[in-house]
Amino acid sequence: MSELSKTPKPPYYAVIFTSLRTAGDNGYGETAQKIDELAKEQIGYLGVKSAREDLGITVSYWKDLESIRKRHENAEHRLAQMKGYEIWYKSFKVRICRVERDYEFER
Amino acid sequence: MSELSKTPKPPYYAVIFTSLRTAGDNGYGETAQKIDELAKEQIGYLGVKSAREDLGITVSYWKDLESIRKRHENAEHRLAQMKGYEIWYKSFKVRICRVERDYEFER
Repeated sequence: MSELSKTPKPPYYAVIFTSLRTAGDNGYGETAQKIDELAKEQIGYLGVKSAREDLGITVSYWKDLESIRKRHENAEHRLAQMKGYEIWYKSFKVRICRVERDYEFER
Repeated sequence: MSELSKTPKPPYYAVIFTSLRTAGDNGYGETAQKIDELAKEQIGYLGVKSAREDLGITVSYWKDLESIRKRHENAEHRLAQMKGYEIWYKSFKVRICRVERDYEFER
């Protein structure tokens, strides 16, 4: 089930990022793509899924808290974060979670 | 920040529901609304947020694992689940998580 993120057996970690954007793109699309590509190269990265209507939800999956911490230390990620605060987001909330159980269905 | 779900200080729980729909509504919209209303009445319910492009992501927040378990025992929720398997979803994945840390930004 690659489309819904192939993740290993729990426990692993999820970062739930919920956001409301400001108007206009302001370079967001390009940076978001770059940041996603960087994440894929990082140790402990397990996948990411996004959807946006008014509200945007992005969930990224990680092997452990250490991988999440390292991702946040990445220079380009920090720069994107700054632009997030300054330009792109009206508001956001980040939740760092331990996935304890999962199950799936495929037709 | 009511728009991004007001949740208490961690720890609390999140259910991440990622799904791909089949074609057509087939009564999904009506049932989804009803199920959301039922959840709000339930003890331990803290909020829900959804977004769908091709992929849909719904995250509901709960006080503890007991509230999540009780929700799944609810008769109407079980009926909706059955329709989910039979009609509405091509595939889905459910992840039950313990939110360990959160932070937010508001302009």
